[in-house]
Amino acid sequence: MVRVAVMGATGYTALETILLLLRHPEVEITALTTRSEERPHVSQIHPQLAGRLDLCLENLSLEEIAQRSDCVFSCLPHKASAERIPGLLDAGCKVIDLSADYRLDSPAVFEQWYGVPHPDAARLGKVPYGLPELFREEIVGSPLVANPGCYPTSAIVPLSPLLKKGWIEPFGIIIDSKSGASGAGKSLKPHLLYCELNEGFSAYGVGVHRHTPEIEQILGKMAGGRVEVIFTPHLVPMERGILTTTYSLPVKPRTQEEILEEMRAFYAGEPFIRIVDNLPNTRDCRHSNFVNVTARIVKDRIVTISCLDNLIKGASGAAVQNFNLLYGFDEKTALL
Amino acid sequence: MVRVAVMGATGYTALETILLLLRHPEVEITALTTRSEERPHVSQIHPQLAGRLDLCLENLSLEEIAQRSDCVFSCLPHKASAERIPGLLDAGCKVIDLSADYRLDSPAVFEQWYGVPHPDAARLGKVPYGLPELFREEIVGSPLVANPGCYPTSAIVPLSPLLKKGWIEPFGIIIDSKSGASGAGKSLKPHLLYCELNEGFSAYGVGVHRHTPEIEQILGKMAGGRVEVIFTPHLVPMERGILTTTYSLPVKPRTQEEILEEMRAFYAGEPFIRIVDNLPNTRDCRHSNFVNVTARIVKDRIVTISCLDNLIKGASGAAVQNFNLLYGFDEKTALL
Amino acid sequence: MVRVAVMGATGYTALETILLLLRHPEVEITALTTRSEERPHVSQIHPQLAGRLDLCLENLSLEEIAQRSDCVFSCLPHKASAERIPGLLDAGCKVIDLSADYRLDSPAVFEQWYGVPHPDAARLGKVPYGLPELFREEIVGSPLVANPGCYPTSAIVPLSPLLKKGWIEPFGIIIDSKSGASGAGKSLKPHLLYCELNEGFSAYGVGVHRHTPEIEQILGKMAGGRVEVIFTPHLVPMERGILTTTYSLPVKPRTQEEILEEMRAFYAGEPFIRIVDNLPNTRDCRHSNFVNVTARIVKDRIVTISCLDNLIKGASGAAVQNFNLLYGFDEKTALL
Amino acid sequence: MVRVAVMGATGYTALETILLLLRHPEVEITALTTRSEERPHVSQIHPQLAGRLDLCLENLSLEEIAQRSDCVFSCLPHKASAERIPGLLDAGCKVIDLSADYRLDSPAVFEQWYGVPHPDAARLGKVPYGLPELFREEIVGSPLVANPGCYPTSAIVPLSPLLKKGWIEPFGIIIDSKSGASGAGKSLKPHLLYCELNEGFSAYGVGVHRHTPEIEQILGKMAGGRVEVIFTPHLVPMERGILTTTYSLPVKPRTQEEILEEMRAFYAGEPFIRIVDNLPNTRDCRHSNFVNVTARIVKDRIVTISCLDNLIKGASGAAVQNFNLLYGFDEKTALL
Repeated sequence: MVRVAVMGATGYTALETILLLLRHPEVEITALTTRSEERPHVSQIHPQLAGRLDLCLENLSLEEIAQRSDCVFSCLPHKASAERIPGLLDAGCKVIDLSADYRLDSPAVFEQWYGVPHPDAARLGKVPYGLPELFREEIVGSPLVANPGCYPTSAIVPLSPLLKKGWIEPFGIIIDSKSGASGAGKSLKPHLLYCELNEGFSAYGVGVHRHTPEIEQILGKMAGGRVEVIFTPHLVPMERGILTTTYSLPVKPRTQEEILEEMRAFYAGEPFIRIVDNLPNTRDCRHSNFVNVTARIVKDRIVTISCLDNLIKGASGAAVQNFNLLYGFDEKTALL
Repeated sequence: MVRVAVMGATGYTALETILLLLRHPEVEITALTTRSEERPHVSQIHPQLAGRLDLCLENLSLEEIAQRSDCVFSCLPHKASAERIPGLLDAGCKVIDLSADYRLDSPAVFEQWYGVPHPDAARLGKVPYGLPELFREEIVGSPLVANPGCYPTSAIVPLSPLLKKGWIEPFGIIIDSKSGASGAGKSLKPHLLYCELNEGFSAYGVGVHRHTPEIEQILGKMAGGRVEVIFTPHLVPMERGILTTTYSLPVKPRTQEEILEEMRAFYAGEPFIRIVDNLPNTRDCRHSNFVNVTARIVKDRIVTISCLDNLIKGASGAAVQNFNLLYGFDEKTALL
Repeated sequence: MVRVAVMGATGYTALETILLLLRHPEVEITALTTRSEERPHVSQIHPQLAGRLDLCLENLSLEEIAQRSDCVFSCLPHKASAERIPGLLDAGCKVIDLSADYRLDSPAVFEQWYGVPHPDAARLGKVPYGLPELFREEIVGSPLVANPGCYPTSAIVPLSPLLKKGWIEPFGIIIDSKSGASGAGKSLKPHLLYCELNEGFSAYGVGVHRHTPEIEQILGKMAGGRVEVIFTPHLVPMERGILTTTYSLPVKPRTQEEILEEMRAFYAGEPFIRIVDNLPNTRDCRHSNFVNVTARIVKDRIVTISCLDNLIKGASGAAVQNFNLLYGFDEKTALL
Repeated sequence: MVRVAVMGATGYTALETILLLLRHPEVEITALTTRSEERPHVSQIHPQLAGRLDLCLENLSLEEIAQRSDCVFSCLPHKASAERIPGLLDAGCKVIDLSADYRLDSPAVFEQWYGVPHPDAARLGKVPYGLPELFREEIVGSPLVANPGCYPTSAIVPLSPLLKKGWIEPFGIIIDSKSGASGAGKSLKPHLLYCELNEGFSAYGVGVHRHTPEIEQILGKMAGGRVEVIFTPHLVPMERGILTTTYSLPVKPRTQEEILEEMRAFYAGEPFIRIVDNLPNTRDCRHSNFVNVTARIVKDRIVTISCLDNLIKGASGAAVQNFNLLYGFDEKTALL
């Protein structure tokens, strides 16, 4: 049994992580942390867990966390996460970081987009990006994994095969994404109120969303050179799910069949990537760790459409998938 | 008082048209038609209208419609509409056609996209497109107006100033649109069921949606030459509202301020176009005849974001605006 | 033209009031107040109003409000409202109070349920309850009207005819109400977040909701004696609308037809009460000032079902209806 | 491994049953039936299952079903189910019937409420009602289980302890239930369209819903005598979840604590019943097999509030729980 702690256990990704781990036969959840001093029972914060998990949320020191657990899932916000992770690693814990802290390779880029100096800058560039479909080997032996952002996974999965093959131009790639509200977390912001979001569809962070450099960095690795994207996220009046539509220019003309075939070859054997012929719907991946992807040719453009559950493959499911890799369990454990 | 008939009165655009016309001081609704023989009271079909309108839906002949009314709003499906309109015009009625039948100039293009020969092909190309902001003069004197499609209005309004000025390349314009479900009407299709649409966001009709040639035709008139768009509609789990994000390549670099200023100049004095600095939200235009538009520069692209209520400015509100023009009423009557 | 101020203009009832008044031919909105010092333009708070109303929200003194306006709609919270209203009345303004402050006759009952002493206790019991269908005569001549609560209107309308006639037992009346989230206002509370309310139906305030004494007081006046209700409000994952199901014991057996007939007689001529045969749906009254009501007999009980739009007939629409009465306008002005 | 067939595999309860069974370590799904001749792959009907289950829906004879499977989950509509079940039992299959066919003891009552003679009337009264919390012993040895209705479970669970103890009057019990739309299945009915249900809350089947006799029969067994309920179902604009509010008259006064304590004693050791102090929210039981229950005293009434997921504990989860009992597996297998 692996003893697991969830750090920052009040939010939606923490809840999903706990729900998945409760199904994992090799996991015992031993600690839940919060930065408040109140020590509520987990069922007061997440009533869904009443009768299923008998733990309180505690403001634990790193020593206490390390003593109680072998592996830590960090659901803390950026910066807070990287302030704690080095200590946990030093104490011998493995860590899966669901924050954005270890995704970017460059401390300067981090500081530019997140507005604060990175608390553990020296480690950047050495932490594997937790998308097993692209970086499985790096993940397997690592004590720390940088769990991907939800939007990035939805864009990287469809575009990677095309960039890897050099089939599309690496500049001017348009990524038009649409996400349910749980991606914004549980924070008390007016635009997240039911009466403000219901029947309200809008774009936000146009051209300035923090997932932009993350997408460009990983796609750049696939392309073997600089990639530039125009990324527009939108907020959908729904709870969970991301659908991403991309538009790119083929280097030379391709048919829809060629593209789908290449995608199928690229992801052959991957248990959670489904290259489909039909147009994906966020419902098809809801509450699952799957990404559904398809492609169309419209005039001179390649259009890809992909979807996933932002809380599962976009966060907690990917984290558990990475956990399985770290500990040598079947990658699908607790995820089907 | 203008005596008004609504043809095809069972659907959502008919209901909205009736609700708007009930506020119009110069209108008397005198006939509602249906192609069924059942003759239900309007409040059985639209319970909202109980106590507000005492008419039955009737399967009326063109003669009966023409006898009872001066002006007809046709909410019939395409083809059905153009089969009836010539007779109404001959009988002296004015007609505002909410179907797609008179929007395209070319019978061949109509047949290609709608799969049937046009029932009144000779009239195509002579009917003004009912977007007063672009074609007010043509509308004023015409007995028949082709009310625009909901997606087209949401794309034409932001792109027209840019194409008119020759500021953007006319090819490869990406139009990524998102619409609430009322745009699909009241038909009993599985994907429109609550339990299928709730939490389900998807693309549909990628590259093959019938609004494509309509958009290209009108934008072509603005550009003074051929325009080619990649149009991707998406279905949003909400009832009403369209938000359209476009991506185009500037002919030479422009600032956000230049673009917004040009848009403001282009639509100066227009009562229903709001060029805004903030990112539009479909809620801001809900239940109103407004279109909200803004623009951003992201890397080398111009991104426009626009929204409207698909049932109002995207259908019934535009129809009433056209009606006001036809009869010389203040264009805003019943619309504010 | 009546010059109108809206006090507490940031919330949902204020927005609805403004939207209705913008349609009123005899009204000029001259002041919007807020208790903050920031002085935002109204379109920053309510983007829907961009281009429609050119006013800033201001922290105005009572003198300034009274100077600028003839009539004040107070959308302030309870207590804050009654602290300002006496000054406005003294300065010659008429006031329609959308808060709960003047609904209860007894200062002691107010203090018991609202937890604070009433700031203007001497006036309690002398202010007409703004349900014109029951208290039209008292309203007409009054400088101040206590606009009813949303739940109370939904329960009082169906039960009044039965209690007035003495047809049902005045004790043990069960009122099971269900409301959309806008009834809770725009406050930043966790349970009002989209991701908490979506797919979440719950009861709240069981047996302790503040609308209980208001319902009992007005029903008591109808019955001519004490009335006791068991009132259970529920929160529905929707934006607007209340549906109330009541269960009462007939003093002697009645048929459904007798009850519907009595209801129709009781509300004969009322423009906003619709006694219907079908089962009401909140959609049927959405965005309108109507209350739909029906009744059924189930075993030995009378079941009534009624619905309304909590922001219109449950708040701002009733307020405008009262305004029309105060100034002698047609009661329906701006409401159809 | 138990070989399992799902009969009538196109609907929502079939999908949920399949999803649960895919997690069951002792189950192999071997057949999916449909009454159509088209033979679609299951992923065409349920895209969620792509890559997870490689079966086609087939119009199989009873012989074929019995050959391929040990246990059959019938998700057929009433009547269709009872027409097939006797043959399956004769062929040696165990059957869990999710339809209403074997819930009522009396053929006459069945015919009265379902409008058709029962196809297997002789078996009525001999089939255990599949609510393990009340009838575990009867279920264990039976080849056939009548899986409970969703509304009945939500009402029977809170009321049983009170009736068993004789604490409440058995007549005039008010059951005010609210259900998400998935309870109505996947049928193409206008009121189930997104645009009709969104923002639309309504009552339906007032006093005439078919779950009434089922509730009264089971509660009667608890009370040891006739029980009469006034049952009002409502349709909530959400996908899944039922919340039921009941009002009953105590035989002698009880405190809230006494009632909760009695409920806790009654359901001691039950893994899926949670007696909670807080007011339940359908979200708390969503996607789980739990029922949450609480109680309040309001004036002279006992108010209970309970909730569950209509597709899980209200249908497929209960079915899997019964399956576990039939085969001697841990009752919680695949359900946590």
